[in-house]
This record gives sequence, C-alpha cells and structure tokens, in this order.
Amino acid sequence: MEKVSLAEGFDAFDEQWSPRLVAEPNDHAVKLAKVEGEFVWHSHPDTDELFFVHDGTVTVEFRDRDDVTLRAGELLVVPSGVEHRPVADEEAQLVLFEAAGTRNTGTTETERTQTETERLNVD
Amino acid sequence: MEKVSLAEGFDAFDEQWSPRLVAEPNDHAVKLAKVEGEFVWHSHPDTDELFFVHDGTVTVEFRDRDDVTLRAGELLVVPSGVEHRPVADEEAQLVLFEAAGTRNTGTTETERTQTETERLNVD
Repeated sequence: MEKVSLAEGFDAFDEQWSPRLVAEPNDHAVKLAKVEGEFVWHSHPDTDELFFVHDGTVTVEFRDRDDVTLRAGELLVVPSGVEHRPVADEEAQLVLFEAAGTRNTGTTETERTQTETERLNVD
Repeated sequence: MEKVSLAEGFDAFDEQWSPRLVAEPNDHAVKLAKVEGEFVWHSHPDTDELFFVHDGTVTVEFRDRDDVTLRAGELLVVPSGVEHRPVADEEAQLVLFEAAGTRNTGTTETERTQTETERLNVD
C-alpha cells in the first residue's frame, strides 16, 4: 500500500491541463492537474467533480451562477451536468476527485480532450 | 454552490475522533476529523477509505502489512476490508473520503462509534 505525496506528484510532471491519476478509491479517481489560462467550457453528465486547490488560485466559472474562486486549501463540488470552466491567471495545482473514467472535457471534444489518463507512480 | 475552506472547517470544531461532513460528491462523503492518540482497530467491508493529512502526522497501522506514516499533504487509500487503526502522537487534521454513510469504526462497535455525522457548514 503506497502513500501519495501531493508535492512529489506535482513535481513529477510539467504538462498543463493533463491530469495524472494517483489513486482510485472505490469507483472514483483522484487526479493531479497543473492548470494555467482558460480551459474549455464543459460539463460531466454522470459525475459530480470535486476541485481542491493544492497551490495557487483557480476560478471555476459558471454559465448560470456566480463564479467561485478557490485558493490553496479550498474545495468545491461541481454537480453533474453543470457547465463550468476552470481558469487560472498563473499556474496552479489542482486535485480532482470524480468518477473513474471521467473525461477531462466532459461532453465537449477539443484538442485538449484526454482519452487516456496516465497513472503517476509516486510514493 | 459553496466552497469549503479546510482551514475554516477545522477551526469550526474541537472534538477529536468526531468526523464532520463537508461535501458529498456523488455517493461519497468528504469529512474532516481531528485525531490524537490511538483509534480502535476496525475495517469497512463495503468501501475503500482515503486518508489525506491536512496538518500534523498520522500513522495508519495494519495487522498484516507495514504501517504507513502520513505527513501534511500526503494521502493513502485503505482498501475495503483491510483492518486498520489510525494513530497520532499529537493532534492532527485528517480529511477522509469514503462512501456516504460509512461508520467511523466500521464493523467495530465502541463508545467512539458515531451513528450520525454532523454536517459542517463553512464557506
């Protein structure tokens, strides 16, 4: 049974908007993502998505409600089906918790769509 | 949609070994717990349990494998059915992620068994 250090995990890759899988509790996935700039608008019809900021600041924008700005140590659950767009002025480190197999761009298909999520082995 | 600050959440209660519910993504629960000393040996037959240390140091002891010591920023998934006991020499702040309705002492019944989990409202 291997523990995961978030700091070591984030040190292990550089690519932005390219989540890495670090743990799979039950039928869910914990992923690390480095983000900067604006992502694409998308929603996930079948899963809530938990955002937890490990470092930096991330604003989660919504079409139909107030944006929510998350700083390090803050989390937000975006309900399934709610269109959202994460935005970060500077590079931020984001932990995602969502159903296993969730696609990063939800039902939106763009050049940023990740079809497979690389597993990061850190301990 | 309300964000949760882990720091504000942990500031909002004092009781040890008394997890507070802060978010419910899908059919799961995110709970905050202050822990110090030895908990009871227990296991959860129906859910993995993710431990994430927000502050301090927590050792997760096992009957049948090496103990794992988690420091702030480290996480561990304890598989369902695996008997374990969290231990902390000094008070530590632990974030738990597990199936909704999971009992803190699993299949073990003690004076520490929590039948209802109080919801913490922090934003």
